[in-house]
Amino acid sequence: MKPIVTLLTDFGVSGYFAGAMKGVILGICPEARPIDISHEIRPYAITEAAFTLAQAWQCFPSGTVHLVVVDPGVGSARRPILVEAAGHYFVAPDNGVLTMLFDSEPIHQVREITATNYFRQPVSQTFHGRDIFAPVAAHLANGAQPAELGEQIRDYVRLSFAKPIRSAPDKWTGCVLAVDRFGNVITNFDAGTWRRLAAEKFEMKLGTQSVSRLASSYAEADAGELFVIAGSAGFLEVSLNQASAAAVIGIEAGGAVELRLL
Amino acid sequence: MKPIVTLLTDFGVSGYFAGAMKGVILGICPEARPIDISHEIRPYAITEAAFTLAQAWQCFPSGTVHLVVVDPGVGSARRPILVEAAGHYFVAPDNGVLTMLFDSEPIHQVREITATNYFRQPVSQTFHGRDIFAPVAAHLANGAQPAELGEQIRDYVRLSFAKPIRSAPDKWTGCVLAVDRFGNVITNFDAGTWRRLAAEKFEMKLGTQSVSRLASSYAEADAGELFVIAGSAGFLEVSLNQASAAAVIGIEAGGAVELRLL
Amino acid sequence: MKPIVTLLTDFGVSGYFAGAMKGVILGICPEARPIDISHEIRPYAITEAAFTLAQAWQCFPSGTVHLVVVDPGVGSARRPILVEAAGHYFVAPDNGVLTMLFDSEPIHQVREITATNYFRQPVSQTFHGRDIFAPVAAHLANGAQPAELGEQIRDYVRLSFAKPIRSAPDKWTGCVLAVDRFGNVITNFDAGTWRRLAAEKFEMKLGTQSVSRLASSYAEADAGELFVIAGSAGFLEVSLNQASAAAVIGIEAGGAVELRLL
Repeated sequence: MKPIVTLLTDFGVSGYFAGAMKGVILGICPEARPIDISHEIRPYAITEAAFTLAQAWQCFPSGTVHLVVVDPGVGSARRPILVEAAGHYFVAPDNGVLTMLFDSEPIHQVREITATNYFRQPVSQTFHGRDIFAPVAAHLANGAQPAELGEQIRDYVRLSFAKPIRSAPDKWTGCVLAVDRFGNVITNFDAGTWRRLAAEKFEMKLGTQSVSRLASSYAEADAGELFVIAGSAGFLEVSLNQASAAAVIGIEAGGAVELRLL
Repeated sequence: MKPIVTLLTDFGVSGYFAGAMKGVILGICPEARPIDISHEIRPYAITEAAFTLAQAWQCFPSGTVHLVVVDPGVGSARRPILVEAAGHYFVAPDNGVLTMLFDSEPIHQVREITATNYFRQPVSQTFHGRDIFAPVAAHLANGAQPAELGEQIRDYVRLSFAKPIRSAPDKWTGCVLAVDRFGNVITNFDAGTWRRLAAEKFEMKLGTQSVSRLASSYAEADAGELFVIAGSAGFLEVSLNQASAAAVIGIEAGGAVELRLL
Repeated sequence: MKPIVTLLTDFGVSGYFAGAMKGVILGICPEARPIDISHEIRPYAITEAAFTLAQAWQCFPSGTVHLVVVDPGVGSARRPILVEAAGHYFVAPDNGVLTMLFDSEPIHQVREITATNYFRQPVSQTFHGRDIFAPVAAHLANGAQPAELGEQIRDYVRLSFAKPIRSAPDKWTGCVLAVDRFGNVITNFDAGTWRRLAAEKFEMKLGTQSVSRLASSYAEADAGELFVIAGSAGFLEVSLNQASAAAVIGIEAGGAVELRLL
């Protein structure tokens, strides 16, 4: 099978960045198939990138190389890392963008990428996507072994945005992981854990709004009514049927969510 | 030849949706070549998706599988369908998004997709693009036969946005199918049928504007002058040379267009 | 190796244009691999396209066909051209969009494309991307020889936006080539030529702002401080650490830049 290399960045689709990375990949591994996940992560939004990756990578076949470049620290001392988990490879800066992967795949190996012979020379100060991450991903696609790229490390960065905190016996404080294009507000309340809401009275507060209804499909809800739904991403989402819940609530990724059982 | 699977959705390019669908396709059919038509159809805009598909699919070679997911009714009882026409396959929700295909290809076979063994399990309530449409498209790319996917149906949804209506002996009322990035206003007046405008005096009204000039190229028109042109999509378009006609007129897809012969 | 065809246009990602071009390419050359560089060049922005192409094409392997369609003159008498340089092919309108390529690769061959038998018939007045440029690129990917497409020409269009002008013994006037998604302002001052700034006192003026600091990485600069950096594109850029320099300066592509040595 021809190796697949996915790309997830905050470079936008209007510049040359994504194109340059795909060119570098194809120059090193002519057989590779570059597949865009997204280049429209908001600039520097590590949490949004972590969530997007977590949703997409599991849909790809084993052996895929995932290239994740959301990298506010480019040019500083932050390390480039290579992670092996569940038969996939992940190449990214060590800034927490793989946190949700580490959580969902407790068995994973992390290496600091130090093999400069696999880099594109000269390495610029400002575009490691082209000069470090893309070449390393392409060499992996070409069959390079992870051990050739650097030593295993244990002190890689993990962030703690992914789970709500219990703030009182009947109260949990979480956050908004992402807002999708339809205005659905994706919280960090795991749908599996919170399946019990179906059997309980609850109140979820976001901004000035309060939501108490759980629906099992968008179509089931009334027009204009905010509701909670177990979204396809595996988290509770706050939605409006054919309208933007985020706009009504006035909330963005990173915003606070409070859940209370009544 | 490696099978081609095109993607046309309203999921946007900033989320994980398009990436997840491409991953599912490649997991089922590693030989497939996913090709993006667009993920930036306006949310729920069935007419815009119908028009975009109608323009793009005929450019692809026979045997292509076209995946169309603009699906305001996801999670409701609307059916997933598979259409065979002109040697191409189309996988979409049964909501009228294939209307222009049905019009241009009178010989077509429509099936309700019921073979749940071809779905990605568990099927979510909110992301049938990943769980139903993408897997079915990938299995078709892999050689699955349409008859394996479900029975033929005749009561599939067709909408009537595609043609103008004669509202007086010298007057026709149509609509705007789409506005392109350059602000060209694409009407539903078929350029072939309306070729006769070249030999006649006419007035086309959109919003507060009235247009009476037919040009044969953008460069031919004067700066600041609205004109009608037979567009590359096969419809009459209202344009401004190097400026946005839609902005001057103040019109969007769905807006009314009135044509009168003088 | 399967032939690579890159696409760089101002068609946007929301219409059918890019999809139609990819379909045409795959219909003519089923082995081709269409790779998007960008479809989000601002409408008609030849300078931005020239810069974007200059940054991306060199990352691709030799033999790649680059399709560049930013074409305000579509339908007028401007010629379609084919350029061979550094083992790559470039198919574009003759409007200066390849100027930076001509500058960086002094050895290049330019042909006017006249072989209408390689076009998609009928050729529309408004979408030469689909009807002329994409088919020609696909035939090249299929092995057609440049000489089959038309005669060599020497009077092709070159523009002069690419280099600053010395306006006084200690003063140079240049311009902004592009603003990237992060708000970095990319000037036309070549980083190699202006390496000497590291050893000199200087003042760079853009809009109402003046910049005198040269940094070697984004992270090195203080928050809120504009600085000059040798960008990954090979030009001096004006940047702000994790914020938009372009927004602070209030400048866009095409804006003036003045450099003075003190």
